[in-house]
Amino acid sequence: MKAEIIAVGSELLTPDCLDTNSLFLSERLTEAGFRVHLKTIVGDVHEDIAGAVRAALGRSDLILLCGGLGPTEDDLTRTAVATVLGRPVAIDEGILQTLRERFAARGFRMAKINERQAELIQGAEVIDNPLGTAPGMWIEEKGRHIVLLPGPPREIKPMLERTVLSKIRSIAEGERLDSRCFHVTGLTESELDSRIAPIYTAYPDVNTTLLAGTRHISVKLCRWTKSGETTSKLDELAGLIQAELGDSIFSARGEFMEEVVGQLLKRSGRTLAVAESCTGGMLGMQITRVPGSSEYFLGGVICYSNEAKMKLCRVPREVLHKHGAVSAEAAEAMASGVREALNSSIGISITGIAGPGGGSREKPVGLVYIGFSDGNHPESRHRIMPGDRDSIRERSVYLALSWLRRKLL
Amino acid sequence: MKAEIIAVGSELLTPDCLDTNSLFLSERLTEAGFRVHLKTIVGDVHEDIAGAVRAALGRSDLILLCGGLGPTEDDLTRTAVATVLGRPVAIDEGILQTLRERFAARGFRMAKINERQAELIQGAEVIDNPLGTAPGMWIEEKGRHIVLLPGPPREIKPMLERTVLSKIRSIAEGERLDSRCFHVTGLTESELDSRIAPIYTAYPDVNTTLLAGTRHISVKLCRWTKSGETTSKLDELAGLIQAELGDSIFSARGEFMEEVVGQLLKRSGRTLAVAESCTGGMLGMQITRVPGSSEYFLGGVICYSNEAKMKLCRVPREVLHKHGAVSAEAAEAMASGVREALNSSIGISITGIAGPGGGSREKPVGLVYIGFSDGNHPESRHRIMPGDRDSIRERSVYLALSWLRRKLL
Repeated sequence: MKAEIIAVGSELLTPDCLDTNSLFLSERLTEAGFRVHLKTIVGDVHEDIAGAVRAALGRSDLILLCGGLGPTEDDLTRTAVATVLGRPVAIDEGILQTLRERFAARGFRMAKINERQAELIQGAEVIDNPLGTAPGMWIEEKGRHIVLLPGPPREIKPMLERTVLSKIRSIAEGERLDSRCFHVTGLTESELDSRIAPIYTAYPDVNTTLLAGTRHISVKLCRWTKSGETTSKLDELAGLIQAELGDSIFSARGEFMEEVVGQLLKRSGRTLAVAESCTGGMLGMQITRVPGSSEYFLGGVICYSNEAKMKLCRVPREVLHKHGAVSAEAAEAMASGVREALNSSIGISITGIAGPGGGSREKPVGLVYIGFSDGNHPESRHRIMPGDRDSIRERSVYLALSWLRRKLL
Repeated sequence: MKAEIIAVGSELLTPDCLDTNSLFLSERLTEAGFRVHLKTIVGDVHEDIAGAVRAALGRSDLILLCGGLGPTEDDLTRTAVATVLGRPVAIDEGILQTLRERFAARGFRMAKINERQAELIQGAEVIDNPLGTAPGMWIEEKGRHIVLLPGPPREIKPMLERTVLSKIRSIAEGERLDSRCFHVTGLTESELDSRIAPIYTAYPDVNTTLLAGTRHISVKLCRWTKSGETTSKLDELAGLIQAELGDSIFSARGEFMEEVVGQLLKRSGRTLAVAESCTGGMLGMQITRVPGSSEYFLGGVICYSNEAKMKLCRVPREVLHKHGAVSAEAAEAMASGVREALNSSIGISITGIAGPGGGSREKPVGLVYIGFSDGNHPESRHRIMPGDRDSIRERSVYLALSWLRRKLL
């Protein structure tokens, strides 16, 4: 069955902003049995929203609109959809009550303007929005389904999981997209492709995609399966790829590197501390994105200045003086120092030149050292990372985590 | 005048891929005097491309199609556009010759399949593609303009600069988009709107948009200015909004909070150190996103565990024992402790419960304390943040920076 997505918001038509909601929406819709065959992006303009909805009703079974449900005058999705359907809009007392309670719980009085968010299109079913003030709506119109969702991804996601997806599955016809995804580390995109292309080309009904990010590469296998059909072809190909790549695959379940490292630390009963210079806290931030990371992560130091390197992680002044802050010796001293300071099993460090300034012929922008200490003789490795300041820092954090995984395997 | 963009390619409808061409296309079109009022993304499906072109001809002066000009069977843009216009398509001997020469120059013989790329829609003007094999086309149809471009950004960009933009400017009417943007802090979206709506509604020809992120709210003012007209109306409204909001506006030049805080620190000659618990390094990471932040940022500690709080930033055991790690007392001790440890002018700290676990009735998930110390008696504030783990952490970092700015003003 056919789905289409209409993203509403004038900001989505500017050079600074893209509709990214459609990425996870497409993913979840496809899993539920709908093919997304068209996307439209319109501004906060009544006629444009109405025109897009009118066109969609003529060609799609399911229409998802995101955005334009806020309280202000330029939030026009409710009224545009109501106009197309020829249905009235009215304040719903239940929603109004819920909204008032939400504001009260946070210690605010609800402004008059927020009452607009309690407007319901006649015949619509309310979709509760646990993380925001704009509730969603589900409307059936002559066998077509229209779903109104707010714009912010963090609000849409729980609404999808709690309410929308089960309703979508119930109207789908049993076709579904099965997929497998491998996260791969330590290979370039072309190295990876030359190893697995001879395998996946023998499975033409499986769609195989390689996707390279600043962090890892994903290999995605997808196949449309009819109701009752098995997924054996997909499993067969997945098995062959897994056998070829071995532990270059760090997750077959969509996990990120910090989650995999966390599981390995937990399993081995070891604890971790970090010392960061050019990444300024990004490694610690990444590790602590994982709930429960306090079981193995003790903390660390952000030793941005040389003083901080000496004071917080005991890097000897001579090391900085003789080799510089961006050196194998400094990285190793930082890793040992923070491990001792926090009494952790493992210490890991990052020091480098993230740019744009500060580079030289001997030590160019992008040069990064990773240090590792587990009580034995400390070690380090270095690499020259491509890209801008942000991506040099991201790649450094990823390299540190990836090396840590190898050490823990 | 109105422009719209149609991106063609089934990959643009998958969960892994977005149309990004429209970003730079929108930028260049807007500069040239066209408003991009709609974007459509369609797959490699004849009816869907044709449907999008048909709809566009009814509402836009300029229609840009990207993609679907390759040599393979799923490259359907040429034939779909020709069908809608009712014009024949024929091999153009000139293009064919150029294509053959291009292949020969690279030492290849042109495959039969590539001849499709020499097909020209009747009446179309050829747009040379210096970096690829698919030439573009410019077609005029009853006062509307249709431009066919290939998909790869590196091919589109030189085609725009060399040929397309000058043609676009010649049909535009000398209009241009002027804009102002304010970044606002410390107000909710509805508080902000209720304060400025009475002002901006008096300027109906300025398009005013409010955009709320997990961090600040942006107020964007845009106005189309005709050739020869001044921007005085826009400046007038900007001035009134600035007067109303005062220092709730932290930037009128698009800067982020960490940049503004950095400038204030630099100007006052003061240095900063941070102590982070639940944010795990995110505050340091954010501060060091700014190149040159080493001038005022010395470093900090990630004191995720209680041991780390005691060892790295001298929080007395009694404080943790009596008040807990998430308390005003702990936040203040962390701020003072890190300031003393690094000998900085200011210490700032974050401790809280980012969830999903770890909350209680007295200390719910989302409760976050920010501590501040500048050598006088330390202070703290707390707030209960909404949202999930990621957004609680992001909001906490933002709150810390925002409070720091107030202190520095």
